[in-house]
Amino acid sequence: MMPQGGGEARGEALASLRGLMHELSTDPAQGDLFEQADREQAAGSLSPWQAANLREMRRAWVRATCIPIELVEASSRAESRCEQAWRTLRAQNDWVAFAPLLSEVVARKRDVAAAWQGPLGLGKYDALLDGFEPGARSAEIDVAFAELRAFLPGFIQAAVERQKSQPAVMPSGPFPTDRQRWLGLAVMAQIGFDFSRGRLDASHHPFCGGVPQDVRITTRYDEGDFTKSFMGVLHETGHAKYEQNLPHDWLDQPVGAARSMSLHESQSLLQEMQVSRGREFLSFVAPLIRQAFPAAADRRPEAFTADNLYRLYTRVHPDYIRVDADEVTYPCHVILRYELEKKLIEGSLQVSGIPDAWDEGMRQLLGLSTKGNYKDGCMQDVHWPAGLFGYFPTYTLGALTAAQIIAAARRALPDLSAQLTRGEFTPLNDWLRERIWSRGSLLGTQHLLIEATGAPLSAAAFKHHLQTRYL
Amino acid sequence: MMPQGGGEARGEALASLRGLMHELSTDPAQGDLFEQADREQAAGSLSPWQAANLREMRRAWVRATCIPIELVEASSRAESRCEQAWRTLRAQNDWVAFAPLLSEVVARKRDVAAAWQGPLGLGKYDALLDGFEPGARSAEIDVAFAELRAFLPGFIQAAVERQKSQPAVMPSGPFPTDRQRWLGLAVMAQIGFDFSRGRLDASHHPFCGGVPQDVRITTRYDEGDFTKSFMGVLHETGHAKYEQNLPHDWLDQPVGAARSMSLHESQSLLQEMQVSRGREFLSFVAPLIRQAFPAAADRRPEAFTADNLYRLYTRVHPDYIRVDADEVTYPCHVILRYELEKKLIEGSLQVSGIPDAWDEGMRQLLGLSTKGNYKDGCMQDVHWPAGLFGYFPTYTLGALTAAQIIAAARRALPDLSAQLTRGEFTPLNDWLRERIWSRGSLLGTQHLLIEATGAPLSAAAFKHHLQTRYL
Repeated sequence: MMPQGGGEARGEALASLRGLMHELSTDPAQGDLFEQADREQAAGSLSPWQAANLREMRRAWVRATCIPIELVEASSRAESRCEQAWRTLRAQNDWVAFAPLLSEVVARKRDVAAAWQGPLGLGKYDALLDGFEPGARSAEIDVAFAELRAFLPGFIQAAVERQKSQPAVMPSGPFPTDRQRWLGLAVMAQIGFDFSRGRLDASHHPFCGGVPQDVRITTRYDEGDFTKSFMGVLHETGHAKYEQNLPHDWLDQPVGAARSMSLHESQSLLQEMQVSRGREFLSFVAPLIRQAFPAAADRRPEAFTADNLYRLYTRVHPDYIRVDADEVTYPCHVILRYELEKKLIEGSLQVSGIPDAWDEGMRQLLGLSTKGNYKDGCMQDVHWPAGLFGYFPTYTLGALTAAQIIAAARRALPDLSAQLTRGEFTPLNDWLRERIWSRGSLLGTQHLLIEATGAPLSAAAFKHHLQTRYL
Repeated sequence: MMPQGGGEARGEALASLRGLMHELSTDPAQGDLFEQADREQAAGSLSPWQAANLREMRRAWVRATCIPIELVEASSRAESRCEQAWRTLRAQNDWVAFAPLLSEVVARKRDVAAAWQGPLGLGKYDALLDGFEPGARSAEIDVAFAELRAFLPGFIQAAVERQKSQPAVMPSGPFPTDRQRWLGLAVMAQIGFDFSRGRLDASHHPFCGGVPQDVRITTRYDEGDFTKSFMGVLHETGHAKYEQNLPHDWLDQPVGAARSMSLHESQSLLQEMQVSRGREFLSFVAPLIRQAFPAAADRRPEAFTADNLYRLYTRVHPDYIRVDADEVTYPCHVILRYELEKKLIEGSLQVSGIPDAWDEGMRQLLGLSTKGNYKDGCMQDVHWPAGLFGYFPTYTLGALTAAQIIAAARRALPDLSAQLTRGEFTPLNDWLRERIWSRGSLLGTQHLLIEATGAPLSAAAFKHHLQTRYL
């Protein structure tokens, strides 16, 4: 909603607030407070929630204090410069101008990782990864990703081959914005979004933001195609339901926050990929879609059947751009980035080597070459220019987690399939609230997942899901 | 835009920020910094803007530090309780339950005023007044208001009498919200609102907020009556143009802020009362209004002529409610409140005496009795329950200031009348930018007004304006 001219003032306000927050969170007086809390814990006078809260507080404090402020600032400056330049250089496909800026970001990020390494007792890459995904270790991710790497390329070929005999019809518009909004609001209410504590708005880049008591999700409407915006709303609503159902009594404390990025993504992917692109939900929602767009549905009824919507929403198509990828090819994009960024941070790959490594990875994983095409290749994402190394794997960890959680929910709720076909979300939401949402950051991610699903994270449920849906 | 459930979290966030701001602004280390700045000023090394900035900083610092925090908190608590209760008690016309809560607010406010009195060297009421209107003194306001008090009651009678022979036709709708919004946006652009640094939105209570680089104004649409919302948009745009044209280089400093509440109100009233309700602007805007509502205009063309709109927008009607008052009766509402609140703070009136005093004042000033009608009488405003003593007079000081400023602008711009008839605002905006807007808080209010209009504030221009327009 902000007019363009407001950006600078907002930036300055945020910088001031960040400065204040940093001062407060690195206040040396906190050392004494932690010692005192440790004595209380040793005396057994902390509840499990209090103890977990202390653990989360210490974690944030250690990360904030064990790194010289000059390093953080040098890293931030390099990132600002690189991200700013990236916005124009990507459009110009200009790798030559971009590479030195990215090299500076990588160099500073290595310094940051090195500073964290000792105090955190982690390898360089893991020190960064742990910032986005507490407790995650690359050694474990390597195992899961290796399994996917061995499985996906052949699987993708088979799925694409199979879908050739199952063409889908694209609904043709126009799809008025207000009708798309009506559809989105109706479905959000149906699946359990609480409108007394949140809103749906429009923005250029869809997101889920705000605070648990006021969750804002956005979408971008295209009057020529409702399908992307509609699925986007469902995805963000998955994030939103997690936020809205965090433990009410602890919302202003670290232990009250969502557990991790992969778990957050698992909730959006569970809603979008596992549930909303499934046959059950699409049979429920097809009549609503026809009600939203009666003229378009009358013109071409075959495009609005649940069967056709299912074919549309499960299309597999290897392509260059991560953000447009389907659930089957998406992990390939992530695995490529994960492998390269690990080497970049550990030092065995330099920025100059990225384009060739990217091209090679894309050929192996998706059978596509990006030679000379930096724009749709190694320059497509904002993450590296913005210094977000260690972030990419959480997308695919989220996909694996979503598959494992919904499989456990199906075992626990034998009627779930029939319920989803009727648009009944209360049983699933209740189950998720109890096992995941309301637990905030009480347990570590792995511990939480074992309690909720009976097993630590693996690729098994995800592979099973893909085989069931696509073959 | 905020959903209801978000209120508590926002309240807590604001309270945290206010606490941090208070800590920063009362930091004892600032004493040394002020001494150092004084030495620099004595050495003549401060520019006029820097010196004015120092003056504004010291003003804020003295006001913040010369009062015990316990007093501020006790006062805040009494106000929260009273304002909260007022929201229901007003609707119930329940003075008996309300009076003790308001007594507590007044008692605490007297304590606050007494604490400021010595350090600021001001009388109790003036110490509060000066918080809203730096440099204003009740002795001067008394003079201007006495002149209005002597003039208005008879003038109102004469104006009402005269308008009996000039009936106005109320346009009848429906006036679709999106057409009202179109009209508002078109006129905002025409009169100089910068949409790259601001927006128009809808809200229950119209306001102008945000920061100078991102000014948000709102209005409330009534599909049965476009006239109120339309004039409301013009009023808020007057506030907005002041904010958007404050001195760019000083926006993050006290000297870069708008000069005072009366001056801010003068800019909205200059836009609304002086210009937009005038014959010149209404001849320009009448065709635009017909373009916005073609069906309604076709049905009843006589309601959409410039002449009829002028009669509508200059209707004089003594009534109970301040916020609905026209520009002629409005000062009567303010004078009444000013006289009572001054006595309340000085101690010569107690809360128990308000209803009788209110009734007596309304009879004298507007010929209306409020006996037993607290709801539309002394309980109608949020100001006193919220502890805003010293705020009311700034509305009428703003009206006097607006009249004096536009009179000076008309002298300086001989073609202004013709320009406004053509909707040309650039010359007037340029003049206001140079004389008022771009000067921020460089000068004191009186000094600024003398430089802009050649004279200190008086009621003369306002009386002249009323006589010209209404008799």
